[in-house]
Amino acid sequence: MLKLGGSVVTVKDRFLTPNIEAINRLAGEIADSRVQRIVIVHGGGSYGHPLAAKYRIAEGHFGEKHQLIGFSETHNAMVSLNRIIVKALIDRGLPAFSISPSSFIMTKHGRICDPPLEVLKYAINMGFMPVSYGDTVLDHERGFAILSGDQLISFLAVKLGAEKVIVGVDVDGLYTSDPKINPSAQFIENVTLEDLKGLASGVGGSRSIDVTGGMMGKIFELTLPVMNGIEVMIVNALKPGNICRALSGENVKGTKIVKG
Amino acid sequence: MLKLGGSVVTVKDRFLTPNIEAINRLAGEIADSRVQRIVIVHGGGSYGHPLAAKYRIAEGHFGEKHQLIGFSETHNAMVSLNRIIVKALIDRGLPAFSISPSSFIMTKHGRICDPPLEVLKYAINMGFMPVSYGDTVLDHERGFAILSGDQLISFLAVKLGAEKVIVGVDVDGLYTSDPKINPSAQFIENVTLEDLKGLASGVGGSRSIDVTGGMMGKIFELTLPVMNGIEVMIVNALKPGNICRALSGENVKGTKIVKG
Repeated sequence: MLKLGGSVVTVKDRFLTPNIEAINRLAGEIADSRVQRIVIVHGGGSYGHPLAAKYRIAEGHFGEKHQLIGFSETHNAMVSLNRIIVKALIDRGLPAFSISPSSFIMTKHGRICDPPLEVLKYAINMGFMPVSYGDTVLDHERGFAILSGDQLISFLAVKLGAEKVIVGVDVDGLYTSDPKINPSAQFIENVTLEDLKGLASGVGGSRSIDVTGGMMGKIFELTLPVMNGIEVMIVNALKPGNICRALSGENVKGTKIVKG
Repeated sequence: MLKLGGSVVTVKDRFLTPNIEAINRLAGEIADSRVQRIVIVHGGGSYGHPLAAKYRIAEGHFGEKHQLIGFSETHNAMVSLNRIIVKALIDRGLPAFSISPSSFIMTKHGRICDPPLEVLKYAINMGFMPVSYGDTVLDHERGFAILSGDQLISFLAVKLGAEKVIVGVDVDGLYTSDPKINPSAQFIENVTLEDLKGLASGVGGSRSIDVTGGMMGKIFELTLPVMNGIEVMIVNALKPGNICRALSGENVKGTKIVKG
């Protein structure tokens, strides 16, 4: 399974702007890796986040009609981005099959309920490359919610019995502190669930880990596949060749999340 | 429920060309009708048919990879068209919610199997306006198949307990013979299931009905909701005002399919 972060496939600070160069390069890398069975999930970046924030989708539905329209608009933006990514993959000769989460997945308090996975399983067995995404979804308790690409790929990895999850982001991985601020920050090649537990409880683990920005939520979601024995690795997808190498099982700089 | 034919929302003989004028006008008519609970299904027209034919999607999957890519390409084209229609509806202040059939519906020999309808039901109850479409879908027997918008809307009308189905096409309805060829062709305001049965068996019913072009398959699908007591009416969606009037329950020229 391959996650492509919103900060990779879009230009983060420009509203509704795809990073076409990165998308085309990554489509080429996926094709070049000759990986056979793969599910791709991408994030929203400048397609999803600004609209979701504007309409406060994550907080649920307050019964106002304009919020329904905001939900529609956010979902439609995600469909646009997905269409661009799927087209890039098809242009590389890959049988990319767009899978729309909100058409079959509902959440409860923002967490995925038991969705029907028949289409996904059937598609993978036929040789399709399902391409799904973080999406606005209906929620049993709140009306609606944001389903992050990280929650989605972690859930699918476990349910579909993935071998490994490669998480492509716009940084090399985890550091002991923010490398932009602290020049003595050290890169972390392996982080254990124990390390992360300490981090989440606020007590601090055996060593310090920098989880500024959206990294904390991402790491939280990714512990699920790790606990289920699936290899999870965070790599920089903006560095050419990284995703191809990671998919091919070659050595690449990144942070592995390991059981312990 | 409202069906918008592919010949209405696209320019039929121009590859991948939406009929933007009609789409925007119809979005306005749907908004003006102030209809509250509605599900919209649109056809493929020049987005779906040429690609589906090129890759012979309807015949199923023969195990060739280029056919998988053809399936992907056809589905992605339908996603593009859906996105345009959903955007037009959102721009009119309607909470249009794109529903992708191939993400949760599978067929068997081209007929819909029991799909999960939880999201659709929940969306309608929340006040969303689901907008779905004829699509390429996975098929238990053939690998894949074409799910026509007519089969989809007829199935959903019955399962969701619709009150009526309005089928917007590019002609006024049914005639006793082709009005373009035969100047004495008479317009049919009501056609019974008995009439249609005679037609299908080739024996001929109580009177002649012209079902050239794609009309035969359409009529065949639409008998299902009629048998379930749902009002089905074919109207010309290219004539301004027709869809608004039909949705508002006002009098409009068209052919009603009635039980008998």
